[in-house]
Amino acid sequence: MARDEMIAFAAEFDPQPMHLDEAAARATMLGGLCASGWYACCILMRMCAEAFVLDSRSMGAPGVDDVKWLVPIRPDDQLHLRATVIETRASASRPSMGFVRFAFELFNGQGERVMTLTTSLMMGRRSATGGGA
Amino acid sequence: MARDEMIAFAAEFDPQPMHLDEAAARATMLGGLCASGWYACCILMRMCAEAFVLDSRSMGAPGVDDVKWLVPIRPDDQLHLRATVIETRASASRPSMGFVRFAFELFNGQGERVMTLTTSLMMGRRSATGGGA
Repeated sequence: MARDEMIAFAAEFDPQPMHLDEAAARATMLGGLCASGWYACCILMRMCAEAFVLDSRSMGAPGVDDVKWLVPIRPDDQLHLRATVIETRASASRPSMGFVRFAFELFNGQGERVMTLTTSLMMGRRSATGGGA
Repeated sequence: MARDEMIAFAAEFDPQPMHLDEAAARATMLGGLCASGWYACCILMRMCAEAFVLDSRSMGAPGVDDVKWLVPIRPDDQLHLRATVIETRASASRPSMGFVRFAFELFNGQGERVMTLTTSLMMGRRSATGGGA
């Protein structure tokens, strides 16, 4: 997490003191500069895109079920993504498509789980009569 | 929603064809270029910041309960935000803080509800012994 990019994102989309300025951030409950939770979501999306979405038949997502920001994400944190498939099912209305439900977890360099996100991705199915999504 | 900014955001965080290129997007289920759902979240955050968060004693949010992307957001769409407070409660562990639960709705220029988002914001309370958040 590059400090400059974290701050530039916050200035554009989430200009609250804890995301913009080290001194102002120290006075907040978060105790220092930390990433906007929305920036963390965007970084998670980019990690997914690079890891598998762009190599898949992804058709987007209808939404997000749950996001938890558990631990502040600080400048220079090294983030790691764990993606766990928790369910697959075919679409009833569109048999060529399936829903793949993922539990995503972001960890920092100290191994702390900093964020979780659960969502169902829509993906093209190998075969309309086949098994999984 | 400025086309250039929508595409620049997607190129950085969510580089899927339906968010990047008009011709490629027409071949997808979404039928044309549309904003990344994450861009819509970021724009919603910015609208909240400008509308009330920066004038409040906002202390951030522990996460997001639910996001639904209902209708594709297109270039040049004019978005309007409706924010409804659905619950307020004091924090048990930190009496100077309360949780304000919001249902946010984004509408486009045709009055279609394009996105909903539910989350609880943490806010400083007027008085630790007072009533609301």
